[in-house]
Amino acid sequence: MKSESPKKALIGLGKGIVQDIEKGQNPSIEISIRALSNVSFDKKTKKLLLGEKTSKREFFNAGHIKKFVQTLEVAKISKDLIDSSKHASLRDVFYMTKRTIQGTKINIVDEQAETDNAIEDLELITDFSREQLNMNANKMGSVAGRVIIEDKGDAIDWSKLGSGGWSIPSNVEEIEFKKVSAKYVIYMEKAAVWERLHEDKFWDKQNCIIISSQGQTTRGIRRLLQRLHSEHSLPIYILTDFDPYGIYIYSVIKFGSISLAHMAESMAIPDVKFLGISADDVINYDLKKHFITLKPVDVSRLKQISDYDWFKNSKPWQRQFKMMRDFNAKLEIQALSSRGISFITDKYLPEKIRKEELID
Amino acid sequence: MKSESPKKALIGLGKGIVQDIEKGQNPSIEISIRALSNVSFDKKTKKLLLGEKTSKREFFNAGHIKKFVQTLEVAKISKDLIDSSKHASLRDVFYMTKRTIQGTKINIVDEQAETDNAIEDLELITDFSREQLNMNANKMGSVAGRVIIEDKGDAIDWSKLGSGGWSIPSNVEEIEFKKVSAKYVIYMEKAAVWERLHEDKFWDKQNCIIISSQGQTTRGIRRLLQRLHSEHSLPIYILTDFDPYGIYIYSVIKFGSISLAHMAESMAIPDVKFLGISADDVINYDLKKHFITLKPVDVSRLKQISDYDWFKNSKPWQRQFKMMRDFNAKLEIQALSSRGISFITDKYLPEKIRKEELID
Repeated sequence: MKSESPKKALIGLGKGIVQDIEKGQNPSIEISIRALSNVSFDKKTKKLLLGEKTSKREFFNAGHIKKFVQTLEVAKISKDLIDSSKHASLRDVFYMTKRTIQGTKINIVDEQAETDNAIEDLELITDFSREQLNMNANKMGSVAGRVIIEDKGDAIDWSKLGSGGWSIPSNVEEIEFKKVSAKYVIYMEKAAVWERLHEDKFWDKQNCIIISSQGQTTRGIRRLLQRLHSEHSLPIYILTDFDPYGIYIYSVIKFGSISLAHMAESMAIPDVKFLGISADDVINYDLKKHFITLKPVDVSRLKQISDYDWFKNSKPWQRQFKMMRDFNAKLEIQALSSRGISFITDKYLPEKIRKEELID
Repeated sequence: MKSESPKKALIGLGKGIVQDIEKGQNPSIEISIRALSNVSFDKKTKKLLLGEKTSKREFFNAGHIKKFVQTLEVAKISKDLIDSSKHASLRDVFYMTKRTIQGTKINIVDEQAETDNAIEDLELITDFSREQLNMNANKMGSVAGRVIIEDKGDAIDWSKLGSGGWSIPSNVEEIEFKKVSAKYVIYMEKAAVWERLHEDKFWDKQNCIIISSQGQTTRGIRRLLQRLHSEHSLPIYILTDFDPYGIYIYSVIKFGSISLAHMAESMAIPDVKFLGISADDVINYDLKKHFITLKPVDVSRLKQISDYDWFKNSKPWQRQFKMMRDFNAKLEIQALSSRGISFITDKYLPEKIRKEELID
């Protein structure tokens, strides 16, 4: 049963351990197993979900003690952060944890991978995301569109931020949507494409929201997409290069990923649609001359992705994969610029959206 | 002699070539040589500057023709962009240039390195930056502080943008500073540190501006720093990890770099000061336990940097380099979090700035 708040969940964790001690039992924590063996693709919700398998982590157990202490240490830091209304980066949490246990020469942690792991465990134990536990990954990305939010007491109009846009924070849990006039969202992997659409006032003409990062879809961005979709019923369209990595970006936003299976509920957005660049676009918009030949690593990545449970039985996706293999080539979004600098804004995107040429 | 505007410079370039043709001469362009042999450190202005050596690029010359055509093609694109008030990314320019010359099988360009080079040549020829020629690199970074700007008709208050801040565009040439109340600027290499300072309202308490990227100091950020310094006389402080790369970030902002020697005037900021993390901070703030041992690649980078003309005769910097070598270790900014999550905001930065513990 989920606690009312992250803080209550953390206090519950502490109380459980105190009870173990008072009863003279070996203090322990029960944690769901985060491994492929315990992850499955749920066909109904269309999300990658964590199974029921759990493991017990005990204090008096030479194999468990280190992780046990790390988890509790990170839990303590999380509670301190919540109490002081502060947020720490994952790297901060590492340095806050990294110290020698009194009277010994043993470090609580030696590498950030250990605290990162402990934080993911804490997400499982408390059923709250690390953002809700006041621990953040890096910030990245920009947004523009007809939306007014309130954040930290500031009213922020995403349509009135000049050429830069609003810089997306690592944690968007506390922002409030005051007014959402936009009708849909385009998320693009490339900041340069975002600047193109922004300069052309694409979001204004089409009444949509444009969001980009540079390369990486941060959790801040994913949660922003998720909230716009679930709280305001906005369709989300994904715009990436025509290559296995672009499709992987789409896949993670839509279905989740193995390492985030325990967060699928708040992270995955099964309704997102793939807007482009598709294999058909390459033909329809005469872009073959800008093909980049697939490298062996691209080919094996393509094979991997086409074998994913959620793509395996999808005819439209298998068709895309086959065409990419037959082309033996990938293509970048910016290849559209060869047709004119604003071809993407004036023709490609409006046409694709009007004709609903989307892949699900 | 510099033209009044980028457009006039581009027209001048075209006219020169037409004149060559009308006179029956071999059409040519004169370009400053961009190589170490023509770059020197100017002790008076404290900037890396380009020398007087030039080379002639001719149309009827088998060794020159390709670059000649590439340069003119990029010049044409730049003029079209300026005429239509649009900006293109470097990748866009590549795709806009990439086509076969009519009646041949020869591509004007095969790789982006070629258009990037042609754009740098165009900067030299016109004496305008690529941003002024409407060609942009990637956008990155966030800013917050008591500043109001006007950009694309929007009034934007950098102190009222919630937890995200203003997302810095790739091109800041056209923003107007309407009101600058802040007293100084801190530029930090890490977005996570920016979020720490922002959550603690450091810029509000200290009346400063905080700017970050993630890793890369984009030209948008460098020009923003430069403009805040030159137009509003704000001191600029650099906050990086204690490692050779952090010092290199400082070095490029302060003195420029070889590839940007021709842009030193508008890019380098000789007055910037290094705020930290310094070797002395490591000792004063008891951070040695968070040392990370230097790898061979760090050691050779350190050697390289300490041999730079502008560091070679600097006692304070040679002292820093020696201490780093003696420690045989580097240290991350976030190691300060081991002293408490807001130690950097409450103690480290205010103390360093009050005592003016800066390295020039």
